[in-house]
Amino acid sequence: MKKFCVSFFVLFLISCSQDSVQSEVAVKKFNWSMVTTWPKNYPGLGMAPERFSKMVNEMSQGQLKITVYGAGEFVPAMGVFDAVSSGSVEMGHGGAYYWKGKVPAAQFFAGVPFGFTADEINAWVYRGGGLELWEEIYQPFNIKPLPGGNTGTQMFGWFNKEINSLADLKGLKMRFPGFGGEVFKRAGGTPVNIPGGELYTAMQTGTIDAVEWVGPYNDLAFGFQQVAKYYYYPGWHEPGSMLEFMINIDEWNGLPPHLQKIVEVAAKAVNQDLLDEYTASNNRALQELINTHDVQLRRLPDDVINEFRAISDDILTSSAENDADVKKVYESFKKFMGEVRSFNAIAEDAFVEARNLSEE
Amino acid sequence: MKKFCVSFFVLFLISCSQDSVQSEVAVKKFNWSMVTTWPKNYPGLGMAPERFSKMVNEMSQGQLKITVYGAGEFVPAMGVFDAVSSGSVEMGHGGAYYWKGKVPAAQFFAGVPFGFTADEINAWVYRGGGLELWEEIYQPFNIKPLPGGNTGTQMFGWFNKEINSLADLKGLKMRFPGFGGEVFKRAGGTPVNIPGGELYTAMQTGTIDAVEWVGPYNDLAFGFQQVAKYYYYPGWHEPGSMLEFMINIDEWNGLPPHLQKIVEVAAKAVNQDLLDEYTASNNRALQELINTHDVQLRRLPDDVINEFRAISDDILTSSAENDADVKKVYESFKKFMGEVRSFNAIAEDAFVEARNLSEE
Repeated sequence: MKKFCVSFFVLFLISCSQDSVQSEVAVKKFNWSMVTTWPKNYPGLGMAPERFSKMVNEMSQGQLKITVYGAGEFVPAMGVFDAVSSGSVEMGHGGAYYWKGKVPAAQFFAGVPFGFTADEINAWVYRGGGLELWEEIYQPFNIKPLPGGNTGTQMFGWFNKEINSLADLKGLKMRFPGFGGEVFKRAGGTPVNIPGGELYTAMQTGTIDAVEWVGPYNDLAFGFQQVAKYYYYPGWHEPGSMLEFMINIDEWNGLPPHLQKIVEVAAKAVNQDLLDEYTASNNRALQELINTHDVQLRRLPDDVINEFRAISDDILTSSAENDADVKKVYESFKKFMGEVRSFNAIAEDAFVEARNLSEE
Repeated sequence: MKKFCVSFFVLFLISCSQDSVQSEVAVKKFNWSMVTTWPKNYPGLGMAPERFSKMVNEMSQGQLKITVYGAGEFVPAMGVFDAVSSGSVEMGHGGAYYWKGKVPAAQFFAGVPFGFTADEINAWVYRGGGLELWEEIYQPFNIKPLPGGNTGTQMFGWFNKEINSLADLKGLKMRFPGFGGEVFKRAGGTPVNIPGGELYTAMQTGTIDAVEWVGPYNDLAFGFQQVAKYYYYPGWHEPGSMLEFMINIDEWNGLPPHLQKIVEVAAKAVNQDLLDEYTASNNRALQELINTHDVQLRRLPDDVINEFRAISDDILTSSAENDADVKKVYESFKKFMGEVRSFNAIAEDAFVEARNLSEE
């Protein structure tokens, strides 16, 4: 899988004005592979690594070429972390909560119930100490993480009946990863983690009764409206899910500084680009689901949301008691949450409320 | 000002595996200047062009060097657009509403009252046709625009008395650019546009009675708490102000494709980075203003907000009637606003409301 294409060039100076001096440098080429947890070229999620690869290739004039593989093309969706860790591939793209079995604290870097919105998690990771903690917990696995996109606020998902109380969740088998899945379990449901590409069939065959995936844009693309009857609920569990690039640290250390910078900057640009794509696409998809496919949009009762909240707090607190990394990350998360919410409450939140009220 | 440093190198192939072939290429170096509307190295706003320049330099291995100038170092703050347009410098950084006298429609790309939040304007500009319209209205001035950061929701500003009704604005002379300033004028005030670096003195000498600038992080840095007595109000006029890079189109066309891509991707990364900086910094600054400097945070009465809203709609509508470009951009803005708000209302807005309520 790894192609060791090493090319050396030497630059000879032919002419230069007084302002520019450049010494001889050797140019080495890199051909990398990136495995992902998404179907190849899947809208949104699957296009983030494709666009990243294209940006890097263009900015580096082909010095760093990254071939992107969909789930199952080289390793299974849930084998991505191990493949990058072992060095059998140089890069991966996925969501950090997929690795909770190995790294429980990783879940905070995808998102936790009642956690950060997209802007908030970006600020925490890039400007609030989050990225340093993320690097610390992935370091034992020889992986360097970078933010790799954001879906915005996700939908709770698709149900075959209305949810009027927690009792309605009893016995439901639902695709539901991360801390959200644990909350769902404590509330009486049975969460399972199934890769995106297998969800349609799982719904169709009745392997699961309900499905949490992303939101209208992605859910429409998978065709859930054809197999889910038909209740669709907004989310509380993933208010701004961050995706991730994973880079094998030995391979990272082998890159020259300008290619490292190209990778970091491209990741940051893609991190915004994906959120833009979701923000621009979700409403059109939602309208199509409602108007063409007769999907029934419902709102969870306040007391159900508050029960989810209480369970979430309890699970996060007890997870922190049982795992030193979770404790450390949770404390950073809580401190930043307190700060960011205080200002948002008088700024963007208050503005949105004013904007919405004045339209009514 | 422009340094024509042209250096040519020829690459000679020394060794290469079968996977890599590279022909001889000439490498030309570029030394650019970027003038800005901000004080040199000003927190947030002024650091966005500095970080952009550093990213571009590192990614291009010095092939594109961009020297950043603060307001007044080469041209005055309000001379940036003309300097880029004429080609006396290659690049500029500022806010599009500063040029409303020349390009009224430009204001939509900084932000309008009751307009887009940061995520919404990013999605409109990058994924909703906004950037194409922005390019179209700057094209006659030989300028290519790119998003260049976002401040998040700005504060209405600093006042020497409480604002309990529109009557309290009568006769107030206030720094207030863009459409927001026009709304303020119609409400009875006197808006003036003064570059950021001159605001402290303008407040101190009583040239203005009130000041709109950005928010706690930037306002604290300018020391308004020392000269403004002491009422501080949240905003309605700039819910997610986008900044801009301006590039002279002839200079842009002279860049090779990989440097064009490096510029575009770095701009996108900086566009997110600046918002992260504000999101992470505003609350700490606000707490310092309130707790150390005894600044009085107040909330505008709902009826004052609704009056601002009515005036805003009226001004935007009549501006569109008087200017074909404003009409075209306003229609795109309104269409996208309708779409993005419908989904946000059930997704992020509903989530934030649920998160806030359950804490009370």
